[in-house]
Amino acid sequence: MEFGIVLKTLGQLLLVESIFLLTPLSISIYYNGDDLTAFLTAALVTAAVGFFLYLSNKKSHGIVRYKESFMIVALGWILVSFFGAIPFTLAGTFGSFVDSFFEAVSGFTTTGATVLTNIEAEPHGILFWRSLTHWLGGMGILVFTLALLPAIGFSSVSILKAESPGPSPTKLVPKITKTAQLLYIIYLFLTVMQIILLKIAGMSFFDSVTHTFATMGTGGFSPMNKSIGAYNIPSYEWIIFLFMILAGTNFSLYYDALLGKFKTLFMDKEFQFYISVIAIAIVLITINITNSIDNLALSFRQASFQVTSIVSTTGFTTLDYSIWPDFSKMIIFLLMFFGGSAGSTGGAIKHIRIMILLKYIKRELHKLVHPQSVISIRIGDQAIPEDIVQNVISFVLMYILIFVGTSLVLLTQNLDILSSTSAVAATLGNVGPGFGIVGPANNYSSLTSFAKILLSFVMIFGRLEIYTILIIFTPIFWRN
Amino acid sequence: MEFGIVLKTLGQLLLVESIFLLTPLSISIYYNGDDLTAFLTAALVTAAVGFFLYLSNKKSHGIVRYKESFMIVALGWILVSFFGAIPFTLAGTFGSFVDSFFEAVSGFTTTGATVLTNIEAEPHGILFWRSLTHWLGGMGILVFTLALLPAIGFSSVSILKAESPGPSPTKLVPKITKTAQLLYIIYLFLTVMQIILLKIAGMSFFDSVTHTFATMGTGGFSPMNKSIGAYNIPSYEWIIFLFMILAGTNFSLYYDALLGKFKTLFMDKEFQFYISVIAIAIVLITINITNSIDNLALSFRQASFQVTSIVSTTGFTTLDYSIWPDFSKMIIFLLMFFGGSAGSTGGAIKHIRIMILLKYIKRELHKLVHPQSVISIRIGDQAIPEDIVQNVISFVLMYILIFVGTSLVLLTQNLDILSSTSAVAATLGNVGPGFGIVGPANNYSSLTSFAKILLSFVMIFGRLEIYTILIIFTPIFWRN
Repeated sequence: MEFGIVLKTLGQLLLVESIFLLTPLSISIYYNGDDLTAFLTAALVTAAVGFFLYLSNKKSHGIVRYKESFMIVALGWILVSFFGAIPFTLAGTFGSFVDSFFEAVSGFTTTGATVLTNIEAEPHGILFWRSLTHWLGGMGILVFTLALLPAIGFSSVSILKAESPGPSPTKLVPKITKTAQLLYIIYLFLTVMQIILLKIAGMSFFDSVTHTFATMGTGGFSPMNKSIGAYNIPSYEWIIFLFMILAGTNFSLYYDALLGKFKTLFMDKEFQFYISVIAIAIVLITINITNSIDNLALSFRQASFQVTSIVSTTGFTTLDYSIWPDFSKMIIFLLMFFGGSAGSTGGAIKHIRIMILLKYIKRELHKLVHPQSVISIRIGDQAIPEDIVQNVISFVLMYILIFVGTSLVLLTQNLDILSSTSAVAATLGNVGPGFGIVGPANNYSSLTSFAKILLSFVMIFGRLEIYTILIIFTPIFWRN
Repeated sequence: MEFGIVLKTLGQLLLVESIFLLTPLSISIYYNGDDLTAFLTAALVTAAVGFFLYLSNKKSHGIVRYKESFMIVALGWILVSFFGAIPFTLAGTFGSFVDSFFEAVSGFTTTGATVLTNIEAEPHGILFWRSLTHWLGGMGILVFTLALLPAIGFSSVSILKAESPGPSPTKLVPKITKTAQLLYIIYLFLTVMQIILLKIAGMSFFDSVTHTFATMGTGGFSPMNKSIGAYNIPSYEWIIFLFMILAGTNFSLYYDALLGKFKTLFMDKEFQFYISVIAIAIVLITINITNSIDNLALSFRQASFQVTSIVSTTGFTTLDYSIWPDFSKMIIFLLMFFGGSAGSTGGAIKHIRIMILLKYIKRELHKLVHPQSVISIRIGDQAIPEDIVQNVISFVLMYILIFVGTSLVLLTQNLDILSSTSAVAATLGNVGPGFGIVGPANNYSSLTSFAKILLSFVMIFGRLEIYTILIIFTPIFWRN
């Protein structure tokens, strides 16, 4: 492990963050907010630490291999959240740094679980910064998916496009840089499109920008206390609905779509499965809630928004879905595990993994009757190598174990079973709101400090696809 | 598929059942019960159908291969439950045959979920028959584990004792018969022991016998409304505690123990894991509930009994664990998935599968750092073949999917999430009581007929380890 290069890269990361910490300044000035000095100080502190880390390791010219990449990503997300929490504390948004850290982690991991009790009372700079963390986190995830996931055996891009990235990440740098640039252009393009559409529909510019940032990162922070439900305007909801679906789709499919090859998008097996899951869930919930509200159009609108918000792991709400019948609540709960597509900004298990899991089971049933048969698991016309299959199955099992284990620990913190399990499902899957104490009508502010710190790390665990963090804690990682 | 031999064997099975249907007669006569004609009629009807099936297929001399075995086991459990339900209906125990069928399935699958609202008001013959179904079901499971599970790739005996039974079950018959006889002797011996011990402790003979039948089959039906909690006598609880642990242990380990080789039992990895899980759960729950009842000895007694009852999938209760704190409730809920050991009369996933699952995850973490390494999963000094590992992992995944899917369907039947999910966990795992509406203070009687039929099949699904039923529904099963 070359620690020099790890620290140097982290220093560069903090320098970039310090620049972004300056952007809310313009908002503060425009709205004449009292959070101006908070951002100025935070930017200076972050820059100072960044410079120190960079300069003291300037001479490190080691190569960033797997081990260094894992350390950079894991420590990077923690460090960036730590410094991103400073403005919240300096502006007096939260009384404790634990709350500030939770909010920042929730932002950068694009979770959107908040500990703010009266969001609308906060200055615009702070609200802008919350949304910006989502947008930056989403960008980070796109590169992370591209650069590091192939190294741990699972990459949407390599699976779906058969672009084996080869064993050495250093050789990949030019290719990754180029692909990353393309992804960023698509990300920027979609961001601008959504802002324009929301503005045309009548939303204020500030609200359009902040909601767009939270949509594209599949985050879910809103400047409104009641999230999108504060407006009760269908056009807003359908625009956000559309962009939540887009943000939860594999971004590499947009290459082809941009080139006019829309067929590739619609023929993509994961995209088809993703859309099917959303459609089925919408139909089931619409039927279920129509019984009580007796308005099919409204039921459909509510179900469409809420299902898409949860599946894409955005976490916006237009109503308190806790009042829905238990059948619909259970579907929402289950959807928290599905998550977006691989190569999207969405979190959780992801649809491609669930597809592989289902095919794994189907193959076993076939084997019962034909024990000698050797069958590959196929997605479309692509056979998935057996080691990737094992990796995917292990991931899902680990995901379930972490969900169960953390829920148990949370139960020691005065939470009931539904609040505890949904809090873990919603943070591990980077969704945001859960049920009960952490449901849409409440938020995470009432939790104990221990619970907040625990869930902060659960968000990072989920965001970095478990392996990235777990691998650092294995003894073999530290052997030469 | 040779249907003749399937029907012939089912006929023989019903003839055996008709003989057992006569045993409650003696109880009815002794207690002068009004259920005498019910058993007489049921025995005659069962014998008549049995004879008809046997005689009309007497000339079938086909060989019982895999496919025939699967049909015999699946149809056998359904048929035996169907005819075993007749006395309940004839004696007027239940108004609907659905209830009678549910109770009989719950008996033969050794689940112990009841739809009886006032158990103590029933005649002794009926209460005896309920318990006897557990005991017979337990015997059936021991042979099923021995004869059919190796065919679908997973057998405790073959894993733990490395006795590969070869590809053809017909060649196995003499060996299976001999092993089955040994298992039955052990089963009988333990049954007699428990009856004697309970009698010595002061329990009435009738209660000793019925509770012992329900313990050895890990069933859980009790002739008392409040189950074992009706007595509040520690010695009863500790005797049943001991025999619940014994019934949930791999019976093949008792061979060696009977020969004085106790070391084999205590060195067995699954046994160690099983005892560890029970011990850890007892400690956690004892600490958790001591806070509220402030009596360490009582907490320990309650926790010990309840944990063992759930892990072994017996389902006796000494108190309403619904009043426990949510942390303890969650542990009880999770234990419903663990189940007994392989080769025991216990149900659910079973400890050996959970061990393999944990080692599967551990191996994947190792592979992340050493992608080229090829490592076998080992239990003790035995390497588990890769196809068995896949079979086990698929089983667990299927178990979770069936749990989730059935819970969703149950939610359409006016159940809340906790009642619905726990009802499925408790029936799929053949445990018995769940939480909420199906918790220890209530039972399954308030469910809709649809829900009762659904859960009847869930009990059979769980009892026959999913594959046995699923395989019959695959198109490939019916091809030649």
